[in-house]
Amino acid sequence: MTHYSKGVETRNLILLHSLELFSINGYDATSVAEICQHAEVSKGAFYHHFASKQDLFLALMTTWLEGVDGSFQATSKMAKSVPEALESMAQSTGGVFDALEGGFPILLEFWRQASRQPDIWERAVSPYRRYLDFFASIIKSGREEGAFDEALDDRHTARILMAVAMGLLLQASFDPDGADWQEVTQFGTRMLLRGMRSKQ
Amino acid sequence: MTHYSKGVETRNLILLHSLELFSINGYDATSVAEICQHAEVSKGAFYHHFASKQDLFLALMTTWLEGVDGSFQATSKMAKSVPEALESMAQSTGGVFDALEGGFPILLEFWRQASRQPDIWERAVSPYRRYLDFFASIIKSGREEGAFDEALDDRHTARILMAVAMGLLLQASFDPDGADWQEVTQFGTRMLLRGMRSKQ
Repeated sequence: MTHYSKGVETRNLILLHSLELFSINGYDATSVAEICQHAEVSKGAFYHHFASKQDLFLALMTTWLEGVDGSFQATSKMAKSVPEALESMAQSTGGVFDALEGGFPILLEFWRQASRQPDIWERAVSPYRRYLDFFASIIKSGREEGAFDEALDDRHTARILMAVAMGLLLQASFDPDGADWQEVTQFGTRMLLRGMRSKQ
Repeated sequence: MTHYSKGVETRNLILLHSLELFSINGYDATSVAEICQHAEVSKGAFYHHFASKQDLFLALMTTWLEGVDGSFQATSKMAKSVPEALESMAQSTGGVFDALEGGFPILLEFWRQASRQPDIWERAVSPYRRYLDFFASIIKSGREEGAFDEALDDRHTARILMAVAMGLLLQASFDPDGADWQEVTQFGTRMLLRGMRSKQ
């Protein structure tokens, strides 16, 4: 029992310290040796928990996106209509921005690296595809409930919503004081919703 | 005269080979020594033309965005109305996508690095601010000609247009075969324009 808890603790220490080092120095410039040194764990312990630095990053990404998923699912279930659900998601992005702002550029750096390695690329890009499916299905429901133009292409619309989300995270991460990004997100959501509404 | 031409040629050789190396290995992992080796120029010649690797990257970025600027300005002048100008810009993004697709992730990597160095940060982020001003002024004209809702916030709207552009470039760069990105861009532009139109 104690041994099990210690394992969990070691794993969490590695996750915590690697996130900090990745944020400060980037993914590429951070070595496993450095992570071990900061987390005060041996290389043996590291490789007991993670097969590689990439494997560690994928674990970080999963933990990180699970929070976003949970918040999106909850919001989506509570809303009375699809437009309301999308507006609530935009309103709840305050937390998403805080969580992703620092992490998003590192995710991009990781993606750039992973794009040249087919074996890890599929795992790395899977959350993107999952969000695309999630938004496409929400838009389909919106069309079915008559809130959106019935001729709207679900997947194209989902790609535009993803583009706005990614593009705002990018701008917020390199120009945090350039605007109230939470306000810009809500403004943009209302603008997109007007563009998606039924032609009258 | 010969000496001058040779200088221009050397500079171009460095720009060409560094772009290739940055695209393959990323900004961080490419050293000045490697660039010199591939371009077959001496380190002395390199530092005659560029103060640093960052300086070289800023020169690449400038050359690269000048093409986009030229195409946007031309399109914008030829259009009969602001909505038409924005649609034409979206249609002309085929070339922009080709030019930026490989370069955009490297630009992001450079930005991540530059964000920690105040001295080069302002130069690195200036094209972003320039595009923001450009789009905000176009939207203002659209409001003035009555094509857009008169209460539309110009800068917020510009941030959303920039977000869509950046987010689509991102998706196109890591998932090039996932969609016809040119078609998605035109689809998104029409959707945004519907969202920006005067409330009837």
